[in-house]
Amino acid sequence: MTLSVLRTDDAWWLQRADGAVRIDTTAATTRELLADRAAVEAARDGGDPVPVADLALVSPVTTPCRVVAQMTNFASHAKDANMDPKAVPLTFFRKASGSVVGPHDDIVRPAHVTLLDYEVEIGVVLGRELAVGTSVTAADLPELIAALVVTNDISARDVQLPKTQFYEGKSYPTFTPVGPALVILEPGELDRFADLRLQLWVNGELRQDQTADDIIYGPLEALQALSRFQHLEAGDLLLTGTPIGTALSAPPKAIEIIGSLLPAATKWKIFFGKQAKNPRYLQDGDLVETRIATDDGAIDLGQQRASVRWTR
Amino acid sequence: MTLSVLRTDDAWWLQRADGAVRIDTTAATTRELLADRAAVEAARDGGDPVPVADLALVSPVTTPCRVVAQMTNFASHAKDANMDPKAVPLTFFRKASGSVVGPHDDIVRPAHVTLLDYEVEIGVVLGRELAVGTSVTAADLPELIAALVVTNDISARDVQLPKTQFYEGKSYPTFTPVGPALVILEPGELDRFADLRLQLWVNGELRQDQTADDIIYGPLEALQALSRFQHLEAGDLLLTGTPIGTALSAPPKAIEIIGSLLPAATKWKIFFGKQAKNPRYLQDGDLVETRIATDDGAIDLGQQRASVRWTR
Repeated sequence: MTLSVLRTDDAWWLQRADGAVRIDTTAATTRELLADRAAVEAARDGGDPVPVADLALVSPVTTPCRVVAQMTNFASHAKDANMDPKAVPLTFFRKASGSVVGPHDDIVRPAHVTLLDYEVEIGVVLGRELAVGTSVTAADLPELIAALVVTNDISARDVQLPKTQFYEGKSYPTFTPVGPALVILEPGELDRFADLRLQLWVNGELRQDQTADDIIYGPLEALQALSRFQHLEAGDLLLTGTPIGTALSAPPKAIEIIGSLLPAATKWKIFFGKQAKNPRYLQDGDLVETRIATDDGAIDLGQQRASVRWTR
Repeated sequence: MTLSVLRTDDAWWLQRADGAVRIDTTAATTRELLADRAAVEAARDGGDPVPVADLALVSPVTTPCRVVAQMTNFASHAKDANMDPKAVPLTFFRKASGSVVGPHDDIVRPAHVTLLDYEVEIGVVLGRELAVGTSVTAADLPELIAALVVTNDISARDVQLPKTQFYEGKSYPTFTPVGPALVILEPGELDRFADLRLQLWVNGELRQDQTADDIIYGPLEALQALSRFQHLEAGDLLLTGTPIGTALSAPPKAIEIIGSLLPAATKWKIFFGKQAKNPRYLQDGDLVETRIATDDGAIDLGQQRASVRWTR
């Protein structure tokens, strides 16, 4: 059975059926908390449970940490972007970990951004060091992957697309809501990864709803590829891609070809003019809810509930 | 006058006209060394100079640190890539700091890479924290920019281009030679930034040769933009872009448009077929030399000299 760990400003909590019990640990970081497994286990019995709703939750992944994200990684999302899922390369980009916020914090649109988008993603939390040059096999996964967590890869499309590099447009403060729970897996539970269903609602309207079975490159292939170039440590975070349903939908192939004939500035002006009329981008005051769990509830990463706030 | 600091496995050294003098400091990181300015200054007089050639130099920028790089940032390089320099957006990407090596270490081509390219760049070393949301003005630059250093942004073009995100193709081990010297600037010396000449030779043939006057977005604009999304600390490294002369040269506009009609896999097959015949990509045993200095020698970041080694 999974262990769901919550975090508030000054404490770690184990979530149980009867509430949250404070974990007796001196851990200051997620890495230290993962190393203090005995303290987490100890909170299973006894303690003085408080209602989870009474806790002001912050991200259970502490920062600074490395945040590495997979580009287009759901077959449904690839097709929506006019790509052949079989031809999509396994690709990573970085997000600044200063973008991490808690599961109920506001998502803030910077004043210079116009097209604010959402992407619900399964976050994989590293359980031990991954040195560059290390070989990774399926047998290493239970040690390498300590926990899973709900994440939202908020994206400023009007920044991300013309720059082509995703780093800045996905790194502004509040652009990575993480939590509520750091869900620590027992051996074998990772086998249910593909059964996890990712869901995202805007103002109650279901926008994304797909299982991880739709993922092109799973955690094993991702970690094998990362081991060629990116040193990782316990507590680092890997975002594994988002399914179809984001506000951004790629232009049809014909438009793309005509676009390649135009100067870049003109092309983007036309594209963003159209996108500005797309009502699916996040508006001031919108409520964004995300949930990731297996349909049978055996693994439940919990729910985020965040308001969108535009800076003017 | 600048202070040129060298580093070996177990010590920091001040480079003087008469040789290198050991700096009496307990600093273990570049950040700590920059904070111990008095120790660096003290090495100006006295000490027991040894020939610089006798030192086995490592990177004077210690890792882990953040390595942030500017995309297409020289007007000459932008034109070579079929871009209008005035329309090029100010864009960043991340490199893994595990890619940093010393100024004389081998540049190693991983077995799966075919098109190995070079990019000489001025490295800017942060002198203090830059918090997100901070305003940055020209008056802050002397504090924010503690030192300059020669860097080479080695790139696996056959990985970088199809993936579109530059992160992996520029992050393999040895892909960021740094040094020889951490050149600490005196107030006012930053005014000479645009006079720095970047040069790169392969087997004695001059391939890149341009001054920083050709830079589109200077360090002030870069740090202002970074302050919107990336927390930085003393000792972090910003690469500021490379001039024309890399092995990769963009296809003419007409080819690019025809390319957009083809499936991605076919387009890249044709492109890489052509590039494979381009003799400018780095070959096994090639000697790569880089140098950055003002023509009058007032600021001299020194020279790198590295051999290319192919893994098979």
